Order: sequence, then C-alpha cells, then structure tokens
Amino acid sequence: MSDSRPIALDAMGGDHAPHEIVAGAVHAVRERRLPVVLVGSPRILYEALADHDATKEVPIVRAEEALAMDEGALASLRRPRSSIAIACHLVRRGDASAVVSAGSTAGIVATGRLRLKAQQGVLRPAIAVALPTLPTPTLLVDAGANAEVKPEMLVQFAHLGAAYAELAYDIPEPRIGLLTIGSEAEKGNKLVKRAHELLQTSPGIHFTGNVEGHDLLTGKVDVVTTDGFTGNVALKTMEGAVRYAFGELAETIGESRLAKFGALMQRGRLRELRRRLDAEAHGGAVLLGLNGTVVIAHGSSKALAISAACQVAADLSAGGIVSRIGDRVAATHRSHRLW
Amino acid sequence: MSDSRPIALDAMGGDHAPHEIVAGAVHAVRERRLPVVLVGSPRILYEALADHDATKEVPIVRAEEALAMDEGALASLRRPRSSIAIACHLVRRGDASAVVSAGSTAGIVATGRLRLKAQQGVLRPAIAVALPTLPTPTLLVDAGANAEVKPEMLVQFAHLGAAYAELAYDIPEPRIGLLTIGSEAEKGNKLVKRAHELLQTSPGIHFTGNVEGHDLLTGKVDVVTTDGFTGNVALKTMEGAVRYAFGELAETIGESRLAKFGALMQRGRLRELRRRLDAEAHGGAVLLGLNGTVVIAHGSSKALAISAACQVAADLSAGGIVSRIGDRVAATHRSHRLW
Repeated sequence: MSDSRPIALDAMGGDHAPHEIVAGAVHAVRERRLPVVLVGSPRILYEALADHDATKEVPIVRAEEALAMDEGALASLRRPRSSIAIACHLVRRGDASAVVSAGSTAGIVATGRLRLKAQQGVLRPAIAVALPTLPTPTLLVDAGANAEVKPEMLVQFAHLGAAYAELAYDIPEPRIGLLTIGSEAEKGNKLVKRAHELLQTSPGIHFTGNVEGHDLLTGKVDVVTTDGFTGNVALKTMEGAVRYAFGELAETIGESRLAKFGALMQRGRLRELRRRLDAEAHGGAVLLGLNGTVVIAHGSSKALAISAACQVAADLSAGGIVSRIGDRVAATHRSHRLW
Repeated sequence: MSDSRPIALDAMGGDHAPHEIVAGAVHAVRERRLPVVLVGSPRILYEALADHDATKEVPIVRAEEALAMDEGALASLRRPRSSIAIACHLVRRGDASAVVSAGSTAGIVATGRLRLKAQQGVLRPAIAVALPTLPTPTLLVDAGANAEVKPEMLVQFAHLGAAYAELAYDIPEPRIGLLTIGSEAEKGNKLVKRAHELLQTSPGIHFTGNVEGHDLLTGKVDVVTTDGFTGNVALKTMEGAVRYAFGELAETIGESRLAKFGALMQRGRLRELRRRLDAEAHGGAVLLGLNGTVVIAHGSSKALAISAACQVAADLSAGGIVSRIGDRVAATHRSHRLW
C-alpha cells in the first residue's frame, strides 16, 4: 500500500532546527525514498537544502513563524501560521499524509488538537511511546498528553495503543496492561480500579491485568495504558534511572585500573546500548487519535532520527492508523449501545 | 541521646523469615549494640536463636499469628495477634521504641495505622524511601501508602520528609521538590497545581519548585513530595529500569570476547553497584506520621539488611522523629489560624 502524498516535516522545531531537520529530510528522500515537504522559512530552508545540493529534491512550504521549544500549549492559539500549524493544515487539506515535528511536545499536542481535531469517537488524543523491549516494543499510552483523565479514556488509550501495535509490530491480539501499584484488581486509585473493571469487559481488548512500574521494560505486555501524568512521570523516571546507572557504571569502571582495558573495548558498545535505552530518542512518540498521523521526534533529534521518524510516520499513515483507530472506537460504541 | 527501650522486630514478616530476621537481630545486638526484641512464635524463635548461641541476648515476645506476604490491608483487621500487630502494640504501650518489619508493605501500613494511629495533626501517614543520591539521599514521600490524596496532604508529606532529612542527614533546610510533568508552575494535574500554590506559601518549607521523573536520582532536592500512586509507580519504574540496564549491560559485555577479561575484573564492583542502586533494598522505607517509628525493610531482606533497618529505626527514634513531625505540623496549623 502506498501513498504518494508527502510527509509534512516541521523544519523549524527542535534543538537542531533547521539544519539537522533539513539533513534528515534529505536522508529520508534519498535513502528511504519517502516523499517529504519541509515547512518553514523558505529562504533559510533553500540555503540549507543547497548545502546538500537538494533544492530540487525537497519542496518547501512557507511558514514564517515557529513555536519556540519553551512555548507551551497557548502559543498554538497565538500562532496560526507557525510551521507546525501549517504542517497540520497540509494534512487536514489532504496535501500531506502525516506530520513530523521535533518541536515542543506541548506545542505539537495543542496545535494538533486545534488544527487536525480528534477523530470521531475519540475522547482524547494521546501520546504513544515505544519502549525498547524485545522482541517488539511495549507501547506506553498516554505518555503525557492528558494530565487529567477519566476511566473511559484509559480504555480508549488501550485501543489507540492496540491499533498501533497491530499495525507497526504485526501483533494480532496485543496484550494490554493497566499501570498501577499492585497486581491485584483492587490495587490503585479510583481511576484505575474503575478502568480495570471496564477493561475486563471491553470488546476488542485483550486485557491481561495490572502491571507495575518494574514491568514496563520486561515485555510482559504490548500496550501499557495509563493517564498522561503517571505515564510521563514513569517515562522520565526510566530515562533518569538509565542515565544514572550508566553514570555510576562509568565511575565504577574508572575506579579500577585493571578494568580499563576492558572498559575501552566496551565503550562503543556501551554508547550504542545507552542510545538504545534512551526511550524517547529511540522510538520517538506518536500522537494518536487525531484526523491524521503526527509523529513527535525527540527535541534533540539529529538527521538520522528525523529520517527514522519520517519512516514511522509513513508506515503508520500507509497502514491506515487513523481508520484502524476509527474502526476500534466505533466497535466500542456499537457494543455499548447493545447494553 | 539514648533510649534504653528495645526495637520491636517482627520476626515472622519477610521472604526469609524467621531465620534471616533472627540473624539480623543477633547482628544488631552484637555488632551495633542495639536493644532488640523479637516478636513471633517463641518456639521457632528460641530454636533459631539457639543456632546463634543467642537465646540469652535477644528476648522474645509471643505472637502466634503472622501476616502472609500476600495478605493486604484487610488482614490487619482480622489478625489482632499477628507479629506486626504485637510489635506495634509494644510501641504503643511504651515498651519498645520502634518497629521494624520486612512483611508486606500493605499489611504494615494498615496495621500501623490501626494500632499506632496517625499522630495529632497528621492527615495521612506516608512512606519515605531514601533514593541513592550523593552526598545525601533524596527522600521520596509518599512512596505508596496513599493512592488517593488531597493537595494539603502533599504539603504534609513535604513536612514528613523534611523532618526525616533534618534528623537523618543533618540538612538544616531541606530542599523540597514537587513531582510533576514539567518545570513550570502551571504544569501537571489539578492536584499538583494546587499543591504547588500551597507549597509556595507554606512556612517551614523550602520549596524549590517542580521536579520531573529524571530529577529523582540527580540529588537536585532533598525531599520529593508526591501522591503514593505516582510515587510507587516511579519507584518501581526506577528499579525496573536499573535492572534492565544491567541486564542489557551483561549481554553487551558477554558479546565481546576481548572485553571478558575486563568484565571479570568488574563483576564484583558491578554487583555492589547494582545492590546500591536497588532503591528499596538500599534505604528501606519508613512509615512516617504515626505515634511511633515504623521501618519497612524490603521483603527480600537478609540479616545485614535487617540489622541496618534496626539502626535506621533506632536513629529516628532517638532523634525524636515523632516530636519533630509534631512540631512541624503544629506550626502549620498555627500559621493557618493566623489567616
């Protein structure tokens, strides 16, 4: 299945915008054969493309404004002509298949909601992050879009994640876990206790029960559903803990002279491992439940990460993630009507 | 300051009860010169003490029942003669200075609340866990006692942690951070937004602002206040992430033949590091805000961990943690009355 429409790449968002974004676009076009349009300031982008001799390979769509990395949700209202807003507009009009941005998460979420709108039947779009488990990633949904939720939304987050896992990892019946603080059904706060009940009887959901924080990286389930507050705290705690473990490890290795030879041998592998464990940098994040695919690349993304994010966006879009979510949500509504 | 009253050690709680608990008691008495009474089945405990030739060094208080590790909060109501209930009773009567148990956390929290009661002015007792930061630990409060809280409780958790940090780590004005999903004041859910306002104007609180998951192990603050749901998810996520990082590391090292020599050299240090990073095993947890000190040792504790938990209990008790918390809470009430 192919889609000739290009990916709208927000060239102005991210710590290394626009140069690494442009380099990522060139990589995606040349190495991955993906159609990409860059959205941002034409003058700057033309010059950046010229550095790659790529002015004829990557079209530019004008957006003279940009959201700064520290601008939050409100900025999306104030800046209807920002690069991320224009990128969403291209998808809305059918001129692009998906959006990729390395800008501020809050800004992307707010702009996506405002410009693309939640798809029919979806209560709240949510962020899915792929955790580096094997053989396939565990998807954490919601990783930060919704700080305040209702139990029904946790069921929908499970559907959003299940649609993603089916499509991206070819898992026919994704196992769903509910993040809480004990494995027994009665453990947790009111929100998760009620969500536990709903998940048990939700059609289309293969609910395998509660999971705890230490289950996130064991591959016990394919999708972990949680509110965006807990999910974001868990995600950042995980990143901090991995960083801490490697920092302590470097000191431990440094302390031992005899170990230095071995340490040198390992340095390259350790760097690779560390990179893989950095969950956000690894999988990027996808904003699910909108009328269009939006991939949120890590703010620190360089060219290869941007190119990889374009691939994720292309795959989700080509696989029909929006209509898959629509089908799941509609089925839920039908089943509710029966009762 | 010394207290001649013994520590009441629940001999029947924990994965390695009673033998490792008894061995821990013997260690605490002989090596740390701490007075300890063992609470549990006299026949079993007498035999275990005899193995250490210690029947004359460690007194026994009878409790014929015990809470199983998988028994939750309700069991504490059904079993008024459990070893943990009797241990609490000894503190309540003034016959012991503190309780130490490696039993189920839910059972200890429920029994402590029921038998010792919350101290005057404390809305909710909470669990403090010491995270392995340097130079002094960061205290995470609440790490799991209260899944459902109000903003005022988050302010009290800050006070509980501050009293602990002052006493145990000699920090005159502990820095308090509020766990949420962004550093700006407006980030988070309703609970933390309101708590943020309250913390800013709370006397006796040196509030340094919001912290995120990745700040938990950087030593940025001395006390992190959070609800017990988020705190428990964060704690377990941290443990899981460290375990995962070390597992991946072992594989990475294993893959490289050249690195094996270095790896062997590092194995001992790595084991030590891993142990230190296991937050719960490291610091143990303290249930703060009751009329008495209750230390919750990790369920997997062996003798040395039990002995270390007895030291924590003795130090907190000798330092007057209960009255320090009482003073802080009373000061809050007075300042509230002024308004």
